[in-house]
Amino acid sequence: MRSGADYIESLKKTKPVVYHLGKRVDNVLEHPLLRWPIKAIARTYDLALDPRYSGILTTTSPLTGEKIERWNHVFGSTDDLVARQKQMRFLQHRLGSCALRCTGLGAINGLYSTTYDMDQKLGTDYHKRFLEFLKRVQKDDSFVSGAMMDVKGNRRLRPSQQADPDMYLRIVEERKDGIVVRGAKAHQTGPMIANEVAVMPCDVMRNEKDRDYAVSFAIAPDAKGITYILQHNLADALTLACEGMDLGNIRYGCQFGATSLMIFDDVFVPEEQVFMQGEWEFTRQLVSRVGTMARMWQCGCRPAIFDLLTGATRLIAEYNGVADSSHIRSKLTEMSYLTETVWGLAIGSAVLGEATPSGAYLPDQLLTNVAKLQSTRAYYELVKLAIDITGGLVVSIPSEKDYRNPDVSQYIDKYLRGVAEVPTEHRMRVVRFIQALTGGPVAAALHHSGGPIENQKIVIYRGTDFEEKKRLVKFLAGIEEE
Amino acid sequence: MRSGADYIESLKKTKPVVYHLGKRVDNVLEHPLLRWPIKAIARTYDLALDPRYSGILTTTSPLTGEKIERWNHVFGSTDDLVARQKQMRFLQHRLGSCALRCTGLGAINGLYSTTYDMDQKLGTDYHKRFLEFLKRVQKDDSFVSGAMMDVKGNRRLRPSQQADPDMYLRIVEERKDGIVVRGAKAHQTGPMIANEVAVMPCDVMRNEKDRDYAVSFAIAPDAKGITYILQHNLADALTLACEGMDLGNIRYGCQFGATSLMIFDDVFVPEEQVFMQGEWEFTRQLVSRVGTMARMWQCGCRPAIFDLLTGATRLIAEYNGVADSSHIRSKLTEMSYLTETVWGLAIGSAVLGEATPSGAYLPDQLLTNVAKLQSTRAYYELVKLAIDITGGLVVSIPSEKDYRNPDVSQYIDKYLRGVAEVPTEHRMRVVRFIQALTGGPVAAALHHSGGPIENQKIVIYRGTDFEEKKRLVKFLAGIEEE
Amino acid sequence: MRSGADYIESLKKTKPVVYHLGKRVDNVLEHPLLRWPIKAIARTYDLALDPRYSGILTTTSPLTGEKIERWNHVFGSTDDLVARQKQMRFLQHRLGSCALRCTGLGAINGLYSTTYDMDQKLGTDYHKRFLEFLKRVQKDDSFVSGAMMDVKGNRRLRPSQQADPDMYLRIVEERKDGIVVRGAKAHQTGPMIANEVAVMPCDVMRNEKDRDYAVSFAIAPDAKGITYILQHNLADALTLACEGMDLGNIRYGCQFGATSLMIFDDVFVPEEQVFMQGEWEFTRQLVSRVGTMARMWQCGCRPAIFDLLTGATRLIAEYNGVADSSHIRSKLTEMSYLTETVWGLAIGSAVLGEATPSGAYLPDQLLTNVAKLQSTRAYYELVKLAIDITGGLVVSIPSEKDYRNPDVSQYIDKYLRGVAEVPTEHRMRVVRFIQALTGGPVAAALHHSGGPIENQKIVIYRGTDFEEKKRLVKFLAGIEEE
Amino acid sequence: MRSGADYIESLKKTKPVVYHLGKRVDNVLEHPLLRWPIKAIARTYDLALDPRYSGILTTTSPLTGEKIERWNHVFGSTDDLVARQKQMRFLQHRLGSCALRCTGLGAINGLYSTTYDMDQKLGTDYHKRFLEFLKRVQKDDSFVSGAMMDVKGNRRLRPSQQADPDMYLRIVEERKDGIVVRGAKAHQTGPMIANEVAVMPCDVMRNEKDRDYAVSFAIAPDAKGITYILQHNLADALTLACEGMDLGNIRYGCQFGATSLMIFDDVFVPEEQVFMQGEWEFTRQLVSRVGTMARMWQCGCRPAIFDLLTGATRLIAEYNGVADSSHIRSKLTEMSYLTETVWGLAIGSAVLGEATPSGAYLPDQLLTNVAKLQSTRAYYELVKLAIDITGGLVVSIPSEKDYRNPDVSQYIDKYLRGVAEVPTEHRMRVVRFIQALTGGPVAAALHHSGGPIENQKIVIYRGTDFEEKKRLVKFLAGIEEE
Repeated sequence: MRSGADYIESLKKTKPVVYHLGKRVDNVLEHPLLRWPIKAIARTYDLALDPRYSGILTTTSPLTGEKIERWNHVFGSTDDLVARQKQMRFLQHRLGSCALRCTGLGAINGLYSTTYDMDQKLGTDYHKRFLEFLKRVQKDDSFVSGAMMDVKGNRRLRPSQQADPDMYLRIVEERKDGIVVRGAKAHQTGPMIANEVAVMPCDVMRNEKDRDYAVSFAIAPDAKGITYILQHNLADALTLACEGMDLGNIRYGCQFGATSLMIFDDVFVPEEQVFMQGEWEFTRQLVSRVGTMARMWQCGCRPAIFDLLTGATRLIAEYNGVADSSHIRSKLTEMSYLTETVWGLAIGSAVLGEATPSGAYLPDQLLTNVAKLQSTRAYYELVKLAIDITGGLVVSIPSEKDYRNPDVSQYIDKYLRGVAEVPTEHRMRVVRFIQALTGGPVAAALHHSGGPIENQKIVIYRGTDFEEKKRLVKFLAGIEEE
Repeated sequence: MRSGADYIESLKKTKPVVYHLGKRVDNVLEHPLLRWPIKAIARTYDLALDPRYSGILTTTSPLTGEKIERWNHVFGSTDDLVARQKQMRFLQHRLGSCALRCTGLGAINGLYSTTYDMDQKLGTDYHKRFLEFLKRVQKDDSFVSGAMMDVKGNRRLRPSQQADPDMYLRIVEERKDGIVVRGAKAHQTGPMIANEVAVMPCDVMRNEKDRDYAVSFAIAPDAKGITYILQHNLADALTLACEGMDLGNIRYGCQFGATSLMIFDDVFVPEEQVFMQGEWEFTRQLVSRVGTMARMWQCGCRPAIFDLLTGATRLIAEYNGVADSSHIRSKLTEMSYLTETVWGLAIGSAVLGEATPSGAYLPDQLLTNVAKLQSTRAYYELVKLAIDITGGLVVSIPSEKDYRNPDVSQYIDKYLRGVAEVPTEHRMRVVRFIQALTGGPVAAALHHSGGPIENQKIVIYRGTDFEEKKRLVKFLAGIEEE
Repeated sequence: MRSGADYIESLKKTKPVVYHLGKRVDNVLEHPLLRWPIKAIARTYDLALDPRYSGILTTTSPLTGEKIERWNHVFGSTDDLVARQKQMRFLQHRLGSCALRCTGLGAINGLYSTTYDMDQKLGTDYHKRFLEFLKRVQKDDSFVSGAMMDVKGNRRLRPSQQADPDMYLRIVEERKDGIVVRGAKAHQTGPMIANEVAVMPCDVMRNEKDRDYAVSFAIAPDAKGITYILQHNLADALTLACEGMDLGNIRYGCQFGATSLMIFDDVFVPEEQVFMQGEWEFTRQLVSRVGTMARMWQCGCRPAIFDLLTGATRLIAEYNGVADSSHIRSKLTEMSYLTETVWGLAIGSAVLGEATPSGAYLPDQLLTNVAKLQSTRAYYELVKLAIDITGGLVVSIPSEKDYRNPDVSQYIDKYLRGVAEVPTEHRMRVVRFIQALTGGPVAAALHHSGGPIENQKIVIYRGTDFEEKKRLVKFLAGIEEE
Repeated sequence: MRSGADYIESLKKTKPVVYHLGKRVDNVLEHPLLRWPIKAIARTYDLALDPRYSGILTTTSPLTGEKIERWNHVFGSTDDLVARQKQMRFLQHRLGSCALRCTGLGAINGLYSTTYDMDQKLGTDYHKRFLEFLKRVQKDDSFVSGAMMDVKGNRRLRPSQQADPDMYLRIVEERKDGIVVRGAKAHQTGPMIANEVAVMPCDVMRNEKDRDYAVSFAIAPDAKGITYILQHNLADALTLACEGMDLGNIRYGCQFGATSLMIFDDVFVPEEQVFMQGEWEFTRQLVSRVGTMARMWQCGCRPAIFDLLTGATRLIAEYNGVADSSHIRSKLTEMSYLTETVWGLAIGSAVLGEATPSGAYLPDQLLTNVAKLQSTRAYYELVKLAIDITGGLVVSIPSEKDYRNPDVSQYIDKYLRGVAEVPTEHRMRVVRFIQALTGGPVAAALHHSGGPIENQKIVIYRGTDFEEKKRLVKFLAGIEEE
C-alpha cells in the first residue's frame, strides 16, 4: 500500500491537459486549488498505513489475498458495508473536506457485479477484463476516479434525440482493437489528479437507438484527447485569494470536489479496458447500482461534516459566552438529531444490504435513498442553525491580512473578542470554519452529489411495496379476508 | 406457549375493579371497549403458535431453555434487538391497533439488568427474586403489563415536595413480609387485562428525601386495593356507538392503549415480588433503560402503522381515480420516506446496541431517541398527507347505519361512489380506516407513548459528544495540533 | 335584524328530510348533534344586535339602505374585506366552533358579480333575479347556506364522462317556468338548518358537453326532493355520548360543520330563483370567485381557533406548573408565530383586494391562497405543539361521568390534579378543550374547507408572474438590456 | 433631490480611513468592492428622479414642504408604511443587491419619535436638535447610514460588566461642547460611503451603571478617530477575482451590505449632534423601534430578492428543458408561496401600524417580527429549491475567463448548452446569478440583518396576549362565565 508521498509521486508521471481561469495549468501539484485535494488524498493514504486504523481503513482483498484500502474493495458482506460507512465518517472527521475517492469505489462495485451479470447472460468477457483492471488497481493502490454524469443538453430528450449527438458520451467508432469515444462528463471530481478513470453512462438507455451511449471503460487521466476545465466558484476565489485562517479549514482547505468539465475529444480506448460496448439493456442495473452506492457514501460522509459544523457551532457559542442558553442547547440538540438521523439510516441501509449474483453486496436501495434525501434536507437546517448561532460575523469578518496589518491589528484583536479568556484569533478561526462549511457552493455540492433528489424520490416510490400495504389494509378494513 | 383462547381463559380467573363512564365494569371480557384489545392480544398469542412465524415471534429462553415468545425475552444480542423490531413491524401490520404487550418487555429487560447491578453492588437478592418472577412469566407465557408513569401533580416539584405526597407512587409502610404502596399510575395500557403487572418509578429520584418513591415490584392486576378508571375519548365514543365498518379497523378496533388511571390504595406487596425498595441511586439507570426501550418499541411499531396509513391512502387515491396524479405520487413518496426513516433508525439503533453488565442488551440510546423523535414528528406529516389525499369525506362520512337504512341506502351507494368499478362500501371502509388512524386521539397516543419529546431531546443532547466534535474542529481550524 | 330566538323560530317553519344514524330526524331543533350548530348560529344573531359590536358585525346595505349583518353584505371596498376578517376572528373567539354562515356569504358575493357580468355580456336578467333574492335575504336577515361541492365520482373524468351522469348536480329538465335538477352536494355545512340555500357548480365546465352542469339557483332547504344524510364521525359520537365538560367547548360543542350529504332527487326550481342555466363559459369565474372567498374566510377563522388552542395550551402549562420552562415558552411562541402569519396574510389579502366590474370587491387571489395554505399547514404544527405540552391525558382522560361517580370521584380529584391550587375539574376541562380542538376530525375539517390544497397551489402558480421575474433577472444577469 | 452623479460627487469630499485585505484604501470610489454598492446607491438616486416612479420613491416632507425621497421620510400614516414596503420591493427588483440605505431610515424614524418622547418627559432639547439634523438631511438628500450593532464581547455580560469596557460604544468624556465616544460598531453597512452616520445603542440599558452606553448622535463618516475595516468573505473574493458574468448580477454585483467594523477611537461629537446622552431609561423604546423598523425593511426587501431567485430558477428550468415537469412546477409554486407569505405579512404589518405620540407611525410590532422570522426561514427553503432545480453546475461552473479562452471556449460552448435554442452564455449567466444569490454569505446576511431571530421570538412571545386567549378558553370550557 502506498503512502501519501507515493501518491504525490505517482502524479508526477501524468500530464493531464487542464485549464483554469483562462490559462493552461502547467503542474497540477502546484496549482493553488488542486494542491488542497491532493493534500487530502495524500492524507487518506497515510492514515491507511497507520496500524491503529487498519480495521477501519483497510481489509483483505479476496481477489489478491493482500491487504488493501477499503477504497478499492468489493463489498463481500453487510459487515463490509457497515465498515465502509464507518471508514467514511472516520476520514471526514479528519479531513473536513472532500476525500475525493468515493466515485471510484462506486464504479468498482457497480462494474464488478454488472460485468459479472453481462458475462453470465451474454457470454462476453467483460468481467474477466474488469478483474484484470481491479487487480492492477488493488496492487498499485491506485486512486480511481469514476466519471458518470453527462452534460445532458436538453433534459427532456434522450441521448440520440439531442440536437447535438455528443451531449452524452458515445462511441463514435468501433475498431478491432478498441473504441473511440466523444462527449463530456460534467462535475467530475478529481480525475485530473487520479491514477485511473472509470467511465460509465449516467442514464438508462432504453433501446437500440441509444446503443452507442451504452459504454463503459477505464482510461488514463492523461489519455490523448482528454481536456479538463476546472470549476471556479466563490470558494475557489477565496482559496486563491487567501492563505491561512481565512480558509476556515487550514489543513485541507474548503474544497468540495475540485470538479471539472472533462472533455473526450475522440479518445481511443483499447479493447481490454472496455467494460460495456452497446449492451444498453444492462445500463439500468449499472446506473442504479452505482447510483445507490454514490448515495450510500454521502450518508457516511454527511454525519461527519455535520459533526464538524456542530462542533464549530458549539465552540462559537462558548466563545460568545452563550453555550448554556436554553435556545442554544435546543438548537445544538436539533443539529445532533439531524446528524444522527442520517447516520442511523447509513447503518440501517448497510445492515439490510443484499448480495448480487456476483457475490458483491449492495446496501438496501430504499433506505439508502431515504438516507440521502434526509442528508440533503438536513444540511440546510444545519446551516440555518449554525448561522443563527454564529451571528453576522460570518458575513462581516475581515481578512487575516487585516488582522496581521499592524495599523489595525489591535482594533480587530480588541473588538472581535468574545469572552475575555479566548484569543480573538481562535474566535476568528472558528467563524471562518463555519463560513467555509455554510457559505459558498457547499450547499449545492452536498445537495447534488449522488444525484438529484428527484431520482431518490423515484427510487423511494418504486421501492415502496404499495400492494402489500394495500393488502394489509383490505384485511383490517374488512374489504378482503386473509 | 399459550393460544389466544388460553389467554382469554386466564382472564376469567381475575376480578379487577374497573370503572368506565360512571359505572363498575362487571366483566372485562364483555366490555365494549376492552373486547378490542383483548382480541388483539389473543391474536398475538395465536400468531406466535403459527410455525410460519416462529423465527419472528418466538425464540429460546436462556433461562428455561424453552421456546418462548419474544414478548418475554431478555435481549441477549444485537440480533435479538433487530428481531424485536421486526417482530413489532410484523405484528402491527396484522393488528393495525395497539398490541399492548410492549410495556412488559421494557419492564422485564430494565429490571433484569438493573436488579443484577443492584445485587452486584449492594449485595441484595433482587435479581434472584426477579429471575423467579421471570421464570414464572416465561413458563406461563403471561401477558405482563409495565406500569411506570406517575400522575406527577406539579411538574416543577420533586415527589417529596408535592402538596399531596401521593402524586408519585410510594411506600407507605415497610413490613417484615413486604411493603404497602399508595399512589396512582397514569395512562396505563391494559393492566386490567394483563396477567402480571410490573411496577417501576417513572422519574429519577435524586436523594434520600425521595427514597420512598424508589420502589419497584410485581403485582397481580386484581390485587386488593387496586382500582382502574378507563379512559373515555372520541375514539372510545365511536367504538361504543358503532359496530362494523364505522370503526375503520373492523378486526381489532381503533384502540391505542385502552389506558386507565390505575390507583393503588394502600396495596400490600409480598417481599418476594419487590425488586427495589428505597435504592434511589438506582432509579436513574432503571428509568433510563426502561425509557430507552419504551422508545425503541415505538420505532418498530410506527413504520407498520404508517405502512397501513400509506396503503389506505393509496387505496383511496385509486378509488377516487387519481392514483397517478403527480402530486399524489409525490405525497405517497413522502409518506414512504417518513416511514422508512423511522424504520432505518430502528434497525440502526438495534445494530449499534451494547451489552449491560448482566449480559442483557440495550439499543443505542442516542439513535433510539432520534428515531422516536422522528416517528413523533413524522406522524403529523403523514396525517396531513393522508387527509389531504382522502378529502373531506373523513369528516362528513355518514354512519354505516344510514348505509344499511333502506330509506337512504341507495342514495349513499349512488353518490359516495368513486370510480365506477369499486363498490361504494369499499370506499367507505377505507375512509373510515383513515379516519381511525388520523382522527381522534391517535396523534396524542403516538406522540406521548415512550415519554415526552423533551426527554428525547435531553438524551440526544447528552448523548452527543460535543467535546470530540470541538476537538476535531480545533485541529482543522488550526487552533490546536493533533 | 333578527335575534337568535327569531332564527330558532324560523326553523320551526321548515320540515327538511334529514337522516342520521339510520333514522329519520323528527325535529332538527332537538337533535343532539344539530342543537350545537343551532346554538352557535343563534349566538351570531344575538351578538349582531349588541350595540357594542355593531361596527364589527353589521354595516349598511347599499341595496336596501338598511342596517344588515356583514354575513349578507356585498363587499364594496377593501375596508369591507378587512372588516370581514375582523368579524370572523371576533366571532370565532366567542364561539370556538363553526359559525356555519360563511358559505352563504361566498355565494352572495360570487353570484352578485358573476350574474352582473353575465347580464352585461349575454343580455340575460340573472343579476336582476339575484338582486331580488338578495333583498329578501337582507330584509329577512336570513341564514343562507351555500352548496357547492359535488360528489364527483371518478375525479379524473369530466361531469359528462362519468359512468353515472349524476355525479355532478345537473339540469335534467328545462321547463317554461323553471328547471328540474338531480345530483348531490357533499360535505354541506348546515343547509338543513338554514333559511335559504344557494346552489352553485363546484368545478369549471369546459364546453357544451357539460352545459347541463352549469347551473346555479336558490332553493328552500325543505324543497320537495331534497334529502340530507348527516355525518357521523368521532366527534359526533362523543357529542352523542356525553354532556358537559367531556365536549371541551361546553358552550357551542365541538362541531366543525354539521355537514351532510345533500341529495337533489329531481327537484324543481322556479325560474325566478335560477341564476345560471347552461352558461358554462361563466363557471370559471363563478367557481374561482366563490372559491377565493371560501378560502378568505378560513384565514379570518383560523387565527381565532389557533388563539383558543394557544390559550388552552398556555393554561394547561400553568396548571401543570411548567409555564415558565424555556421549551414551553419557545413552543407557545411558535404557536403565536403560526397564528399571526395567517392573520397578517388575512389582512394583507383584504387590503390588496380589487373591485370587479359589478363594484363588488374580491380579496387578492394570490395572497388569499397563500394564506389558506399557510393556515392548513399551520394547524398540524399547532396540534403537535399543543399535544406535546398537554401530555398523554389527552388520550387517557376519564369521562365526567366517572368524575361524578362517588365510588371513584375522590380518586380522580386527587390524582388528576396538577398544581395544588387549581381545581382538578379545571384541569380536566382544559384537557377536554384541547382534545376537542386537536382530536377527532378537526384536522380534516380545517384542511379541506375552502377546497383541496392543490387548488390553492394551482392558483399560486398561475397567480405568480414568472415572466416579470424572468425579465428582471435577464437585465441583472446581462442577458437583456432594459 | 440629487442624482446618482451628485451622490458620487459628494463622496469625493470625504476621506474616510478604510482598510481592506491588509491595506489602506486610497479611494473608496475606485475600490473594487465598494464600487458596487456605490453604483447601487447611485441608481436609487437616479430612479427617484424618474417621474414615472415619483409616487413610489418620493413624497412630500411635512418638515420642509419639499419633495423628498422616501429614504429620509418620517412615516406619517399607515399609507406611508405601505408605500415604504412597495418602494423596497420596487428597488430590490431593479438592484438585485443591497440598496444600503435602510439603516438610515430606521434611525430617522426611531430617533424622531424617541427624542420627541424624551423632550416631553425630561424637558431636554434632543428633538429640536434632531429636527435640525433631519432638515439638513432632507435638504441635502443625504444618504444616512445607521450604526447600531455593538461588538458585544461576552454576550452574557451587560456593557459595564465586560472585561473590556469598550465592547459597547460609550461616552468616555463629557465636555461642555460635546462628548467623546469610544467603542466599535460591527457589521456596519456602508457608513464609509454615506454622507451622514446616525449612531444608536444596540441593546437596552437597564440601570445607571450602563448610563454611559446610552448614547446616540450623528457624525460625519470621516470624522477624526473613525476607522473602517472592510469585510472579506467568499463573495468578496469572487468580486475581486472576476469581472463580468462570473458575478451573476453584472449590474450591481453580489454585495449584501459592504459591511465593516467601524471603530470609534475617542471620537468627539459636538453637542448639537448628540441625541441621547445617558438617558438609559429611553434605550428600550429606541432599540425596540429601530429594531422593529429594521425588520420591517427586510420584509419589503426579501420578496424582491426571492422574486429574482424564483425568476432565475424558472429560467434555468426552461434552459434545461424541464420547466413543465410537475415537480418543477410544484417547487416553483412553493417558492412563490414562501415569497408571498413574507409580502402579505409586510403589507399586513404596515396596515395595522399605529402612531407614536410624536405622530410618527410604527408598523405592527407583532406582525413585523412574524414577517421577519418567516423571511429568514423562507430563504433557506428557497435556496434548497433553487439549488435543486439548477443542478450541480452551481458548483462546477468554469470561469468566464475560460469561456473567453480560444483554447477551450468551443468545448464550453458545446457542452454547457442546455436546450439547443438558448445560447450557452445565457445559461451560464443564469447559473452565476443563482450562485450569487444562494452561495457565499448571502444566507447569513439575510438571516441576521434586522437582528437575531431570538429577538424576534421574544417580541412575538411578549406581543402575544396570552391572558386574553386564556380568558376566551375559560368561558368556552366552562371554567368561568363571561
